[in-house]
Amino acid sequence: MSVAIVGAGPGDPGLITVRGLELVQRCEILVYDRLVSLELVARATGAARIARDGLAQEEVNELLVHHGRRGRRVVRLKGGDPFVFGRGGEEVEALVAAGIPYQVVPGVSTLTAVPALAGIPLTHRDTAAQVTVITGTSADGSELDYDHLAATPGTLVIFMGLRRLATIADNLILAGRRVDEGAAVVSRLSLGDASVRTGTLGTIARRAEGMATPSVAIVGDVALHPERLRSLAAGVLVD
Amino acid sequence: MSVAIVGAGPGDPGLITVRGLELVQRCEILVYDRLVSLELVARATGAARIARDGLAQEEVNELLVHHGRRGRRVVRLKGGDPFVFGRGGEEVEALVAAGIPYQVVPGVSTLTAVPALAGIPLTHRDTAAQVTVITGTSADGSELDYDHLAATPGTLVIFMGLRRLATIADNLILAGRRVDEGAAVVSRLSLGDASVRTGTLGTIARRAEGMATPSVAIVGDVALHPERLRSLAAGVLVD
Repeated sequence: MSVAIVGAGPGDPGLITVRGLELVQRCEILVYDRLVSLELVARATGAARIARDGLAQEEVNELLVHHGRRGRRVVRLKGGDPFVFGRGGEEVEALVAAGIPYQVVPGVSTLTAVPALAGIPLTHRDTAAQVTVITGTSADGSELDYDHLAATPGTLVIFMGLRRLATIADNLILAGRRVDEGAAVVSRLSLGDASVRTGTLGTIARRAEGMATPSVAIVGDVALHPERLRSLAAGVLVD
Repeated sequence: MSVAIVGAGPGDPGLITVRGLELVQRCEILVYDRLVSLELVARATGAARIARDGLAQEEVNELLVHHGRRGRRVVRLKGGDPFVFGRGGEEVEALVAAGIPYQVVPGVSTLTAVPALAGIPLTHRDTAAQVTVITGTSADGSELDYDHLAATPGTLVIFMGLRRLATIADNLILAGRRVDEGAAVVSRLSLGDASVRTGTLGTIARRAEGMATPSVAIVGDVALHPERLRSLAAGVLVD
């Protein structure tokens, strides 16, 4: 395979997959995201290393096609998983259109890392399990369907919603979700300075002020027991 | 850390994390799930290897506590990720209650592997992104809320629903979901004999007859283009 689209995992360099690391170590061209650990980037010894930051998506696509066409061993290293709300699909489409052989190596998504590393279970065995994953910002700028989300059972996980968290929380409450329902924001999970703040849907936006991206917000009573989280989330500051 | 609860990833031994593999190689006691690759189990050279199959959950908890208390290096190796509809939470609770130090190493969830390996994107940039993840069978035997699921936008991902797929599909249609909406079943993803069958909500249960577990069902128009999946899903039989 000429081009490999590889998920780097949630941040900690030990959380890339074995295959992903092998590909990084052997590659000739590495195109990496801002959120990828520099320790992983450094493992691509001998590769030309290109930060994706500052490039438009089309330029990234062109880079992959250009070097892929020449048969270079290219790794496109992306934070988390390439496809869970990533734009891996667009890069794959560009490679398919150009007839370049490629492979995708999935990664540990932030979604998966939240329960494991922050101690917040997304489901609980005693309830009919449902997890709803949304992005706080949609590509076309359309609003979330708050009426529907208010009536959705189980846990809501909101990616990329920190900046709009006050609006999202207010609208969920107006649409009928409980003001005292549990909520949490997990910031920079698996990075050196991870933190978790908990509260209720009514308080979480103010509680989360000043937290750093990347972050994930969780709405659901699974977030109601910060003392329990503290015992579970080794190395994470739970506030 | 005495006990490590480690996600093995979706099946392919190259998709465990780097840290997960290190822990497996160094452990003294390995308790592993049926769905974990035997190639990974074999990497625990020198460890006592205990198949979880045939043990009740309480017996697994007791094993972990027993060996953890003696300070042995224990790895509990679970398919996929330990917390995404896994029962990792119960094992953590048992360790916390017994005061045994532990860590959780997340894994690549089947949820993440579906888009990467079967070529089925769960979201598309042109629509407000939402993914709803449910289990086809709940712990307490309660039925799914079909009325609500029928009105849920975006893609539905159904874990552990293969046996009940006809019932689930019929109820979704009765509740108002389109009979010609796309649907797919992904079986044994990232294992040697992975396969994908596609159809519509009206046909998928019959199309998926005879498929092997573990499997994931997907409801959404993202599954409508099998010819596209064939070009994306290297090494997976798309039917």
